[in-house]
Amino acid sequence: MTAHAITADTVAATVARLRERRPRVHCITNSAAVNFTANVLLSAGCFPSMTVNPEEVPDFVAGADALLVNLGTLDPLRQDAIGAAIEVTAETGRPWVLDPVFVERSRMRLALAKRLAMAEPAAIRLNRAELAALMGGEENDDPENIRPDHVAPGSDESAAAYALATLSTVVRTGDVDFITDGVRSLNIEGGHPTMALVTAMGCAGTALLAGFLAVEPDAVVASAVCLAFVAAAAEQAGMRSYGPGTFSPAFIDALYWLRPEEIGASARIS
Amino acid sequence: MTAHAITADTVAATVARLRERRPRVHCITNSAAVNFTANVLLSAGCFPSMTVNPEEVPDFVAGADALLVNLGTLDPLRQDAIGAAIEVTAETGRPWVLDPVFVERSRMRLALAKRLAMAEPAAIRLNRAELAALMGGEENDDPENIRPDHVAPGSDESAAAYALATLSTVVRTGDVDFITDGVRSLNIEGGHPTMALVTAMGCAGTALLAGFLAVEPDAVVASAVCLAFVAAAAEQAGMRSYGPGTFSPAFIDALYWLRPEEIGASARIS
Amino acid sequence: MTAHAITADTVAATVARLRERRPRVHCITNSAAVNFTANVLLSAGCFPSMTVNPEEVPDFVAGADALLVNLGTLDPLRQDAIGAAIEVTAETGRPWVLDPVFVERSRMRLALAKRLAMAEPAAIRLNRAELAALMGGEENDDPENIRPDHVAPGSDESAAAYALATLSTVVRTGDVDFITDGVRSLNIEGGHPTMALVTAMGCAGTALLAGFLAVEPDAVVASAVCLAFVAAAAEQAGMRSYGPGTFSPAFIDALYWLRPEEIGASARIS
Repeated sequence: MTAHAITADTVAATVARLRERRPRVHCITNSAAVNFTANVLLSAGCFPSMTVNPEEVPDFVAGADALLVNLGTLDPLRQDAIGAAIEVTAETGRPWVLDPVFVERSRMRLALAKRLAMAEPAAIRLNRAELAALMGGEENDDPENIRPDHVAPGSDESAAAYALATLSTVVRTGDVDFITDGVRSLNIEGGHPTMALVTAMGCAGTALLAGFLAVEPDAVVASAVCLAFVAAAAEQAGMRSYGPGTFSPAFIDALYWLRPEEIGASARIS
Repeated sequence: MTAHAITADTVAATVARLRERRPRVHCITNSAAVNFTANVLLSAGCFPSMTVNPEEVPDFVAGADALLVNLGTLDPLRQDAIGAAIEVTAETGRPWVLDPVFVERSRMRLALAKRLAMAEPAAIRLNRAELAALMGGEENDDPENIRPDHVAPGSDESAAAYALATLSTVVRTGDVDFITDGVRSLNIEGGHPTMALVTAMGCAGTALLAGFLAVEPDAVVASAVCLAFVAAAAEQAGMRSYGPGTFSPAFIDALYWLRPEEIGASARIS
Repeated sequence: MTAHAITADTVAATVARLRERRPRVHCITNSAAVNFTANVLLSAGCFPSMTVNPEEVPDFVAGADALLVNLGTLDPLRQDAIGAAIEVTAETGRPWVLDPVFVERSRMRLALAKRLAMAEPAAIRLNRAELAALMGGEENDDPENIRPDHVAPGSDESAAAYALATLSTVVRTGDVDFITDGVRSLNIEGGHPTMALVTAMGCAGTALLAGFLAVEPDAVVASAVCLAFVAAAAEQAGMRSYGPGTFSPAFIDALYWLRPEEIGASARIS
């Protein structure tokens, strides 16, 4: 994908569409992220719901425009909820996003994440270590391993291979964010170093990506616009805060106040 | 109820009584609300406890002055906890408040909320959509429907009918808040539009209502004072913040700093 | 322990070591504390993980440098998680800290806390009421009671007796904090009154103590440095905030910005 493929105008128009349509996003997310995620969604222009009760999740997901599945604090209730939720999206055709938090730290979580990645998420958001774990990690003798031998774990090439294998768009966040559907690839620059010191920043960003997928069917475009929006808000928050504690409220403020054109103008997509 | 029935002095005296007695409020609430609710209660002058473990809830409720039952993120554990908690309040005679969050979005939750509304909550706090759902919604062919045919769903009249049917005080929040016990009715104006962009604002306000019920047995008065207090704090927060992110800390600050007479003077009860 | 035993230099060096090593702290904590605790750990210089799923906890604890066990919102899942977690620390020899929140309010929780206190926590952090409850409370006819008859419940003497009985370091927080391993005893002064109005301040502080135990094996020193750090950050937050709502972000900012020498210089350990 060439740099001019996603213009400032596209970014601005997509953010404006999100705020106009105010999509409902149902979130199955971890206990550290639930409040912050709901506030991020509300400020950015979405309506959140957060129940993880498997009995209720089908009704909530049926009424939602998109779904977030975040694997943090993955208890048996959440595991059941995820299964019930994905069944509904398979019926309704609504997009869902997978955030395989800390899969490199728990074997059970890794096994579940590998299965979920094959259940047609519109996008998978992760960092380098999580991608490496999902693709078999350092040792490539795992029979389920889908990383080609010559590809470095967690690399751009492996992300593209994983996108093709899962028929999903892979969004690998880090100092520079990388988006690929296996054919088209993009880098997003920007943001602020304090993001790494605030819990659930990535989790909340992935919830917002679910919101963007509800208004933009091309997951590469939705992901790029979402990350550009988050980066712009983080840059504002960095200027209006004194440390990681005041960064969070300032970030939520910026998600609300930033105008679409400002977000478009500040986007660094290449 | 006429406007002069709840005076600025009554508001001020009731807030002062809350801060002096510092009631213990046990909260069974949703995962997005738990931290914010605890901080709202502490700042306003109450002592919160938040466990949802059915084994422990009876001990906590027995030692509390009031109980909040909020139906958000309603998992099986919370369902058991609610049953155990209400049994204790039935024995101790301590007031409890029902907050039937999102009952219009989940059939299971709606069925439970209908039963709980009949278990003698001192007050039920909800919005127009939740009230309409509880009373049978748009279609009035539900055999359990208790809304008279000629009454619009969610309206003032239906709120009064629901208060009589449940022997409770109905507190319907929105642009203008409406309180009724079926005989007396009040409107509360004020607050700030940013409240709608902060998750759990309503949930935390209902927890505070439980606190007020511990110090004021007339649920219409307790509700009016609580909403006037919340509105005053929200107005202060609106002036001292830059968006939804900085609104929350400013709101909690204001709950702590506002003097009873200021709250009384700013109350718009009619 | 005499006042000069823990110098400003020791405090500064220990804080510097925490930030350099960035220990991983796995937290089994309550739902009101989870987000705030994660942010406190990140700002202070640790890497938090927060799952309470018993299936995953062993993998997380095996990869962590220290463990927090907090008994708030103690549901069956957390009870299982605690058992699984402590088994792993017994194997790995990594330190863990017990925070028996509200044990005086729930018989079930008290029984569990008494057992856990005997499972070799490096430190037990509690307040006066919790200590009194753990040692048998006012009535000393409990056969399990380990408080000598002549010792007042919750007192310095009883804390020392409890430290000897549990082979742990007891950290009793309050207006003045008191640390004892039964032989050496210390007082820590400082902090800010607003701390009592912010939920989970104590819980987050205990999580940070787990982090310090990962870099300082002497639990008396680790506790003193941790409390001095928290007190210094709270004093900064008191100056940079307008009430309990803005205190929390300012506290997290200060945990990040305070230089080791500043913390050492402001420590009041005697």
